[in-house]
Amino acid sequence: MYVPSQVGHRRWAIAEGYIPEFSNGPAPQFTSHETVCVLNASDSDAHVELTVFFTDREPVGPYRLTVGARRTLHQRMNDLADPPIPRGVDYASLIESDVPVVVQHTRLDSRQSANALITTIGHPIPEES
Amino acid sequence: MYVPSQVGHRRWAIAEGYIPEFSNGPAPQFTSHETVCVLNASDSDAHVELTVFFTDREPVGPYRLTVGARRTLHQRMNDLADPPIPRGVDYASLIESDVPVVVQHTRLDSRQSANALITTIGHPIPEES
Amino acid sequence: MYVPSQVGHRRWAIAEGYIPEFSNGPAPQFTSHETVCVLNASDSDAHVELTVFFTDREPVGPYRLTVGARRTLHQRMNDLADPPIPRGVDYASLIESDVPVVVQHTRLDSRQSANALITTIGHPIPEES
Amino acid sequence: MYVPSQVGHRRWAIAEGYIPEFSNGPAPQFTSHETVCVLNASDSDAHVELTVFFTDREPVGPYRLTVGARRTLHQRMNDLADPPIPRGVDYASLIESDVPVVVQHTRLDSRQSANALITTIGHPIPEES
Repeated sequence: MYVPSQVGHRRWAIAEGYIPEFSNGPAPQFTSHETVCVLNASDSDAHVELTVFFTDREPVGPYRLTVGARRTLHQRMNDLADPPIPRGVDYASLIESDVPVVVQHTRLDSRQSANALITTIGHPIPEES
Repeated sequence: MYVPSQVGHRRWAIAEGYIPEFSNGPAPQFTSHETVCVLNASDSDAHVELTVFFTDREPVGPYRLTVGARRTLHQRMNDLADPPIPRGVDYASLIESDVPVVVQHTRLDSRQSANALITTIGHPIPEES
Repeated sequence: MYVPSQVGHRRWAIAEGYIPEFSNGPAPQFTSHETVCVLNASDSDAHVELTVFFTDREPVGPYRLTVGARRTLHQRMNDLADPPIPRGVDYASLIESDVPVVVQHTRLDSRQSANALITTIGHPIPEES
Repeated sequence: MYVPSQVGHRRWAIAEGYIPEFSNGPAPQFTSHETVCVLNASDSDAHVELTVFFTDREPVGPYRLTVGARRTLHQRMNDLADPPIPRGVDYASLIESDVPVVVQHTRLDSRQSANALITTIGHPIPEES
């Protein structure tokens, strides 16, 4: 069986980010949104910090999330506050955790008549040597 | 030519998982679903264990699958039983095999009038050192 | 500037493969298809061998492709012959080259009224040590 | 907190590239396009060179972009000039930077009635040893 403390990395990056400005279909499931998905397969809670980068202003954050031991958290970027992520604006994300996690990023875009989806596993950042 | 015993890794993780609750179009091909795709290029059968993580409850599994030598298995998550994966619920997956395999994860979402698709290669977990 | 001989890997795997059986929209651009995209940034032609794995039969291939020095080839899997890849059947791919290349896999699915797309960078297989 | 100078790699490759020839919906947001997304989490500006490879002609570029310190740039391939990227033509990309960055590639295809999207994290090229 797996060694829970060794599933993933402590730091991840996602270069693409964009929350579409409008939506078609009933909320919340068809609201255009982006989600950062974090898997914490370890036996300790993961304390996660999310820093968001923009084209023309300083980064914001860190936003703080907790992902319980042996849990996954699919956090809508739309729901972050202090400050909220602006809609219709390019951004990128850096995810840092105190225990190894696995990170994936997904968008649902329902601006036209049928939704479109994208996903990618994040880019893991190796530990400092 | 390739060395079949060395194509891939024994452990993989997928942080995103979500089986949409409804569908448009004829079943089974347009049924909203997620699929874990496993390539076993080796000359030995792969015995695969799938553990599924949730937001607010303990993981379930392992579900056990066999992928024959020199075969690929595209297993619909919808078809897992004991227990079934609930629809409309966030989850994540850990895949473990006794021989190296390659893992990819795909969703077909047909809730609106035209289907949407996502895929990503999984995140490989290096061997313990 | 980059060292052309060192961009990528000699072996790649893709676990997902499926050519949808029908299409909407004018051929060839809206024909449902899968494409293996190979970038050869090196100064030597790449001789590529493609092996295709199935659920319930032995692998077929290798299909042989040449990707010129400093060229990219986006090969539709639909166009492979001897034997053709069957439609509506699950498969997976192993790609081997005599010089390092980068491999990505894409599907266009036009079975419903608006096309859906997926892509992922392949999984690189490290050199034998 | 992260070490900004070590987030990512100096060289990345994307094997898939294709700007669809037509679009549905208001420009610019629904114009069919491809975007290379670059995250520069470092404290130094990133000077980025983009080389584009084709099926049947020599590569073009490098196109030069600057991504400020602690910024992300989502550059539409459609907007590159000298020379422009032709529409409806297969291509691939090599991205080189003087500081480590993270690269992701996205397409919006609005040729049919509802847009389709794809994305993938690029393939990082390790440093020369």
